[in-house]
Amino acid sequence: MFAVHDFLKSAQRGAVAVAAALLLVTSAKAQSDPLPSWNDTAPKAAIVAFVEKVTTENSPDFVPEPERIAVFDNDGTLWVEHPMYTQLAFALDRVKAEAAAHPEWKDKQPFKAVLEGDMKALAAAGEKGLVELIMETHADMTHDEFQKVVSEWIATARDPKFNKPYTELVYQPMLELLAYLRANGFKTFIVSGGGIEFVRPWAEQVYGVPPEQVVGSSIKTQFEMRDGLPTLFRLPQVNFIDDKAGKPVGINAHIGRRPIAAFGNSDGDLEMLQWTTMTGGSVRFGMIIHHTDADREYAYDRKSEFGRLDKALDAAAINNWTVVDMKADWKEIFLEK
Amino acid sequence: MFAVHDFLKSAQRGAVAVAAALLLVTSAKAQSDPLPSWNDTAPKAAIVAFVEKVTTENSPDFVPEPERIAVFDNDGTLWVEHPMYTQLAFALDRVKAEAAAHPEWKDKQPFKAVLEGDMKALAAAGEKGLVELIMETHADMTHDEFQKVVSEWIATARDPKFNKPYTELVYQPMLELLAYLRANGFKTFIVSGGGIEFVRPWAEQVYGVPPEQVVGSSIKTQFEMRDGLPTLFRLPQVNFIDDKAGKPVGINAHIGRRPIAAFGNSDGDLEMLQWTTMTGGSVRFGMIIHHTDADREYAYDRKSEFGRLDKALDAAAINNWTVVDMKADWKEIFLEK
Repeated sequence: MFAVHDFLKSAQRGAVAVAAALLLVTSAKAQSDPLPSWNDTAPKAAIVAFVEKVTTENSPDFVPEPERIAVFDNDGTLWVEHPMYTQLAFALDRVKAEAAAHPEWKDKQPFKAVLEGDMKALAAAGEKGLVELIMETHADMTHDEFQKVVSEWIATARDPKFNKPYTELVYQPMLELLAYLRANGFKTFIVSGGGIEFVRPWAEQVYGVPPEQVVGSSIKTQFEMRDGLPTLFRLPQVNFIDDKAGKPVGINAHIGRRPIAAFGNSDGDLEMLQWTTMTGGSVRFGMIIHHTDADREYAYDRKSEFGRLDKALDAAAINNWTVVDMKADWKEIFLEK
Repeated sequence: MFAVHDFLKSAQRGAVAVAAALLLVTSAKAQSDPLPSWNDTAPKAAIVAFVEKVTTENSPDFVPEPERIAVFDNDGTLWVEHPMYTQLAFALDRVKAEAAAHPEWKDKQPFKAVLEGDMKALAAAGEKGLVELIMETHADMTHDEFQKVVSEWIATARDPKFNKPYTELVYQPMLELLAYLRANGFKTFIVSGGGIEFVRPWAEQVYGVPPEQVVGSSIKTQFEMRDGLPTLFRLPQVNFIDDKAGKPVGINAHIGRRPIAAFGNSDGDLEMLQWTTMTGGSVRFGMIIHHTDADREYAYDRKSEFGRLDKALDAAAINNWTVVDMKADWKEIFLEK
């Protein structure tokens, strides 16, 4: 992926080399399709038309580079979110890994349900049970410890359906889209309902998105000196939920300007898409990924437990957001490795 | 100021122009001093030595560009904070501007004190009074409305001592330092105890720091649809105080990696400097701006009401942070316009 810092680094090696590299990039761009995993259907055309509009200098729709902010939901937009959110699979694995140190969990819900693989009992524990699971597995440790646990898990865990690491279940068309936008001067941000610190340890390597461009839900952290060393400690208290009406709040807190493009797939992204596109004026782009491919991935929308797409699908028609039909519009879903 | 986006924009104009521009930049760099407003004393040498260390490839202290994060306090580090924090001057002006619509303020503290210019009574109102002032002047309006109020004020208000706009009371040596770090692949962030939305409207133009690289204190905001348009509304509730032990928390929330350089001037920056530099390992840089120049600016430290520098001055000696003596180390403080 093309990254500004790589470009600048190479620039330091000398002007002649840069000139040559730029000529190569320019001619490669002219010859090759930046979105090869997208079929030549309406969504691809809409993306390219939007990017050309906002990058054409002296056009009325031109947007200066610093304002080219694009925001992407993560679960179901950049990677698989079925049969459950990956972060939930992480929490369940953590309960199992820590069970030996917590003999009381054998008789205590929702931990009992997790240890017995009783998904019905787990569902019955509801949101309260879920928060309890998250706090038990995500808090009461230092920031560095949590980063290590996440990094180790993501490197080894495998999705049950595809039997692949979760980081290989990212959507190839969306990776191409991220790179295409960045090559056109966009700054790409992840705006996830999931935990900000669950995404950051691998987002740079997998998506090319650095930690400072990840927005997400969080628990409270506290600074303290421990054994003479400064430490950030994770407290079992919710700090911010970056979902639904929280997404525009999170976007404003982290980015401080309104995005010009937003990409989501569920009702959790509705307000982010509204905030991005409904300005009453300038050119904006909204896109919904609709999971329609039961053969290659999953098919779900209005009644799904994870990634429900109902209100936002109705809103897409009203607001002219581009809806991607995964089955029809994506040539490849995953990169074969 | 040299900005990446400007550079990239010009890059689009063609490889040949870029090559020419780079040759100019390279030769200009070789010939000219990137920190001309700094005297040739120890602090300048320490900065240059640090930057050369972390940017020299194949050296043991080399830091890849994405990890070159530098954080700057704002009040007293990048601009003047006496006779009072500029944001407090803003709040007082707002009370005066809105007094006609609030006849009850004539008899109600701390507003009465502000309207009568009674700084003793204002001080007596303490932190509780200050929070009341901030909430009354910073909340109960939309995000866009607040941005407009700040932008209009900063464009017209003048500092009482220098009779200049506040944006001309930024320290020229620090502007040069920001630009020097960016030219060496650093990403520069402001980490202010002041309000994030008070700094963002002008930080890009004045410091070359875009809104997404500003961290600061905040009040709660709420997303809602108003007359069919998505709106962020500012609520009169404290969300986060980005000061003292809050600074490492704010840095982690926004940036997600530990900075390698931190610049502050007061006890409010102590924990930020600890978090940045006390890693028990790799090369880091910490700097304290010590206000020692009563003639050209102000002289204050251990007993000052605004920007008290006491514990952090002791910590500087222990932790090898570079202390800038403004009188001795800065050739110019402000750029004459």
